[in-house]
Amino acid sequence: MTEAIAADALLDRMRHKGDVMQRDCPSRAILQHLTSRWGVLVMLALLPGPRRFSALRRRIGGVSERMLAQTLQQLEGDGMIWRRAHAVVPPHVDYGLTPLGTEAAGRILGLAGWIEDNLSDILSAAQQRAA
Amino acid sequence: MTEAIAADALLDRMRHKGDVMQRDCPSRAILQHLTSRWGVLVMLALLPGPRRFSALRRRIGGVSERMLAQTLQQLEGDGMIWRRAHAVVPPHVDYGLTPLGTEAAGRILGLAGWIEDNLSDILSAAQQRAA
Repeated sequence: MTEAIAADALLDRMRHKGDVMQRDCPSRAILQHLTSRWGVLVMLALLPGPRRFSALRRRIGGVSERMLAQTLQQLEGDGMIWRRAHAVVPPHVDYGLTPLGTEAAGRILGLAGWIEDNLSDILSAAQQRAA
Repeated sequence: MTEAIAADALLDRMRHKGDVMQRDCPSRAILQHLTSRWGVLVMLALLPGPRRFSALRRRIGGVSERMLAQTLQQLEGDGMIWRRAHAVVPPHVDYGLTPLGTEAAGRILGLAGWIEDNLSDILSAAQQRAA
């Protein structure tokens, strides 16, 4: 087996069941987009339902127009988000979660919700460590 | 109520139940550390049990010594990870998850495991979009 074929076989195996610990597994890029600084918050903000760009921007404290547009584009490229432009005056664009995106967002909420619910314990633990 | 007192009251409320959508809520920093490029992978790599620095570095494909040390320090500061230095020759250092860290890592596995299990569907969805 040549090296190229071995690499193809490895990639093929990884495509069926990913392994985020492997440097070259495509699962790692998906994970990084979903857990990026703004990616996490965009997914959470879309969980209740589709929103317009301006509403998303208001919902996510501190995000710039540029970073929001970039994040939405990346998640759209991964098939997590859909984008619908309406031919109205003034024009407006909706974003929503695809079925895959809804599943992913549920898992993200599992982590973010846990942090929100346990914030007081987490901050105490961090403070004790620092003392 | 002065502005400073209002801000304190807001911070106090946020400390009891966080809100990652708020720019200044401390939950957002915790979320960002846990979902950082290497933070996610360090938490997952420690889920089966404590590991030495060198073992962690081997487990996490592509991480540099410097980034691993920095990530461990950040998560230790948040009370997610403990560090134990052994007074032996040659010296070695173990890292493990605290009880809070174990809970957080379980949630991270919820997301990463879902991506690994559904990688083939995710890649097909992304490809269809590009076509």
